[in-house]
Amino acid sequence: MAVQASEIDDTLKRLSSRKGVKAVVILNSEGQAIRSTLDPDLTKQYGQLISNLAQQARSAVTTLDEQNDLTFLRVRTKKHEIMVAPDREYLLIVVQNPVETTQQATPQA
Amino acid sequence: MAVQASEIDDTLKRLSSRKGVKAVVILNSEGQAIRSTLDPDLTKQYGQLISNLAQQARSAVTTLDEQNDLTFLRVRTKKHEIMVAPDREYLLIVVQNPVETTQQATPQA
Repeated sequence: MAVQASEIDDTLKRLSSRKGVKAVVILNSEGQAIRSTLDPDLTKQYGQLISNLAQQARSAVTTLDEQNDLTFLRVRTKKHEIMVAPDREYLLIVVQNPVETTQQATPQA
Repeated sequence: MAVQASEIDDTLKRLSSRKGVKAVVILNSEGQAIRSTLDPDLTKQYGQLISNLAQQARSAVTTLDEQNDLTFLRVRTKKHEIMVAPDREYLLIVVQNPVETTQQATPQA
């Protein structure tokens, strides 16, 4: 059962309006970006690097236990957090400011 | 400044006694397990797969922005959650039951 384009748009809209969310990229099962709030170059870079990473994470998880599977990946970095949700047909990538406590928002380029 | 063996033992003890923690593996900078609560085979598998994954995550992060760096990796799976903390000298891997509620264990060496 295919996900409707409107559902994808809704997801993009909902996520990108969240506080702290800096970027949203949605890839299809071929790893191609079908929605993105980033410019084309960054979209491509994020798409390739993060989908490869998600694939390796899934492969590690199923190698350790073939009954298991990846459901979610969080990559915390010095500057932000990259959250990766592998869906049935899509890979959802959300870049957000680290969810600390009550830190003041610092302007970021 | 080298971390004392007793500090590593303390970290292992502290983490493995936490509610929901199923396993703790500590690797040195060469990727060799120096402490583990798992049997040797699983320790080796976790060590190799998760340290490779952490390396790829770090590489993705620094490729996207060379001023950035990986600080923490969480791999959520159907069965449990694998948390990876790259320290200065060590890679800390904690396998725990998924944390659904409020507290989120963030292991620190």
